[in-house]
Amino acid sequence: MMQRVEPSYIFSEEQVAARSDIARRFLHARTRLNENVHKVDNFLVKRFYNLDHNTYLEGALPAKYKELMGLVASACLRCDDCINYHIIQSYRLGVSRAEQEEAINVAMVVGGSIVIPHLRRAYELLTELYG
Amino acid sequence: MMQRVEPSYIFSEEQVAARSDIARRFLHARTRLNENVHKVDNFLVKRFYNLDHNTYLEGALPAKYKELMGLVASACLRCDDCINYHIIQSYRLGVSRAEQEEAINVAMVVGGSIVIPHLRRAYELLTELYG
Amino acid sequence: MMQRVEPSYIFSEEQVAARSDIARRFLHARTRLNENVHKVDNFLVKRFYNLDHNTYLEGALPAKYKELMGLVASACLRCDDCINYHIIQSYRLGVSRAEQEEAINVAMVVGGSIVIPHLRRAYELLTELYG
Amino acid sequence: MMQRVEPSYIFSEEQVAARSDIARRFLHARTRLNENVHKVDNFLVKRFYNLDHNTYLEGALPAKYKELMGLVASACLRCDDCINYHIIQSYRLGVSRAEQEEAINVAMVVGGSIVIPHLRRAYELLTELYG
Amino acid sequence: MMQRVEPSYIFSEEQVAARSDIARRFLHARTRLNENVHKVDNFLVKRFYNLDHNTYLEGALPAKYKELMGLVASACLRCDDCINYHIIQSYRLGVSRAEQEEAINVAMVVGGSIVIPHLRRAYELLTELYG
Amino acid sequence: MMQRVEPSYIFSEEQVAARSDIARRFLHARTRLNENVHKVDNFLVKRFYNLDHNTYLEGALPAKYKELMGLVASACLRCDDCINYHIIQSYRLGVSRAEQEEAINVAMVVGGSIVIPHLRRAYELLTELYG
Repeated sequence: MMQRVEPSYIFSEEQVAARSDIARRFLHARTRLNENVHKVDNFLVKRFYNLDHNTYLEGALPAKYKELMGLVASACLRCDDCINYHIIQSYRLGVSRAEQEEAINVAMVVGGSIVIPHLRRAYELLTELYG
Repeated sequence: MMQRVEPSYIFSEEQVAARSDIARRFLHARTRLNENVHKVDNFLVKRFYNLDHNTYLEGALPAKYKELMGLVASACLRCDDCINYHIIQSYRLGVSRAEQEEAINVAMVVGGSIVIPHLRRAYELLTELYG
Repeated sequence: MMQRVEPSYIFSEEQVAARSDIARRFLHARTRLNENVHKVDNFLVKRFYNLDHNTYLEGALPAKYKELMGLVASACLRCDDCINYHIIQSYRLGVSRAEQEEAINVAMVVGGSIVIPHLRRAYELLTELYG
Repeated sequence: MMQRVEPSYIFSEEQVAARSDIARRFLHARTRLNENVHKVDNFLVKRFYNLDHNTYLEGALPAKYKELMGLVASACLRCDDCINYHIIQSYRLGVSRAEQEEAINVAMVVGGSIVIPHLRRAYELLTELYG
Repeated sequence: MMQRVEPSYIFSEEQVAARSDIARRFLHARTRLNENVHKVDNFLVKRFYNLDHNTYLEGALPAKYKELMGLVASACLRCDDCINYHIIQSYRLGVSRAEQEEAINVAMVVGGSIVIPHLRRAYELLTELYG
Repeated sequence: MMQRVEPSYIFSEEQVAARSDIARRFLHARTRLNENVHKVDNFLVKRFYNLDHNTYLEGALPAKYKELMGLVASACLRCDDCINYHIIQSYRLGVSRAEQEEAINVAMVVGGSIVIPHLRRAYELLTELYG
């Protein structure tokens, strides 16, 4: 089995929240809702959260590219919460704005113009994060 | 504007076709159908094909990671033809089997068990390509 | 033809609205928007609403399981309004919280992590309804 | 209520089948499978088939544009059977090849490159029908 | 190559915004977010926006039917922003309310009840625009 | 934690395969492809398969209703392999044909006419299984 290790984040969630209002509101709402989910303690939900966590660890592919893949998947499946999450995670791992834009371009071309409203909102978050 | 350059392929389509029956049949059918599309010479289709080609060139992100992102998008949107195409392109760029599997895992976790039948077929192609 | 009968609700929409703010706001907005739709009186829309109503009546399957199936479909197609609606309907038919969670788990596993933001919001409604 | 009338077809299904092998095989398989569905006589399925039939009649919009809208919906939701069906129906109503291509372009741009494999197959049918 | 020309709009965006609060808020948000996207000047995004613009010009099909096809695609892929956009564009090109409703019916029947919450919101916009 | 137990199957996969050609071919192909997946022994894939298995065990909801929920999810996400799988599993658990049809009706109404080609194929399998 491939050795899996936690990635090294350059920025904490708090630092991201301090830089961007969109990120701060997203992280706050996500934490609040997740606390409710964790309190319920559903066996399969916990297992799925754990599986999800393991998917993005360092492995054969560097964690930063897997976060960008999560961004591509989220953008072409069109989930703003998931897009925000993976943009923030990629930012925390040192991904550049140009790299984030190229990942979003893959989603835009594969997923079509229906992705554009999400791209517009993603760019707003990118602008807050990268200035 | 970011300088964009064609990626350097390690293997030609012919070499891929010689290694794998699935790849050969896919590439053959794709070429045949594309010849018909090109003959028609629809302005917007040509423009879209061109845009699509530009998306996967070397850029801020290495071409091999963008092909894997195309694979993730294709797998979570569940298109076998697109999955085959990006697996073959990634293989041609020197991506390892473990890297391909990790990209597919991102699609599986984001997209759920509905991705599994495509994963099964993708693994069959991976086994033919990587032995 | 299978005899179809209206299910017996344990709770009225008003009782649900009194228990949960999320439900109340959802039901209020839905009623307001539906009044506009009904005023327009489009023939095919009326037919579709009627077909939709008939789908969830008591039949070969008890209504409560069909509402839960509507919940699964809504969650894996990722529509918060539809998720809210079927959670409320299931609650009104006496479905337990554990049963609602298991239905959502099917949607989570089939539909993947892209369903999770909807699961988080669904759990918030479940907590308001079941306390 | 809007008066709804059956559209006037320029070509019968038999004439379409005589022109195109793809169309013939599709229509044959569809007829065979539909016979099995009709034999079962499920109330809601019959109602849905009826609703579906009514959707494409002459109305505020000419039937030919609604068939092309069905084609756009089918292409961006990526269902080859549905794409074949609406291309054939449009052809039977006298839609030109250029009109069919423009409808498919809307689906390609809204739905992205994931639509391309279906476009390739659609073009093969178009070439058989329009020569 | 087919000659492509800009359609003639009966109403400006300003006139639409003056008629409908929903349209005004949508157009305002869209303009604000697009300004941020244009400032970034990403090559592929610009190319995609350009391709998208060309898709809806007058051509083999009148622009008004292509806007309605964009509406059908947006409704069955379930994107409120895109639905609003194509309803507004269709309105600006003189499409009647009955024509808009028939296009939405195609999306409802092809896409199912999951489209209904979007139909409800679309009808609210239609009522503001057509009174 | 909820006690989870394996459901009691009335029919084995072999008995199903003996009754239906479609089922036999599906189960054979699935087994062959899964053997290749298992040989690869990817950690996350194994974890996902395990999670998937646990989702359909007896629990707060009887296994047979969860298999039907898997069928609804598969039909509205439009995956023939998954539809076949859950029809077979439901059959093995003693679900009646009328119950299977009602579950498919939920998917048809939620997911729209795009589900119909899959319904047609599902009915062919149902007819082979239930005669």
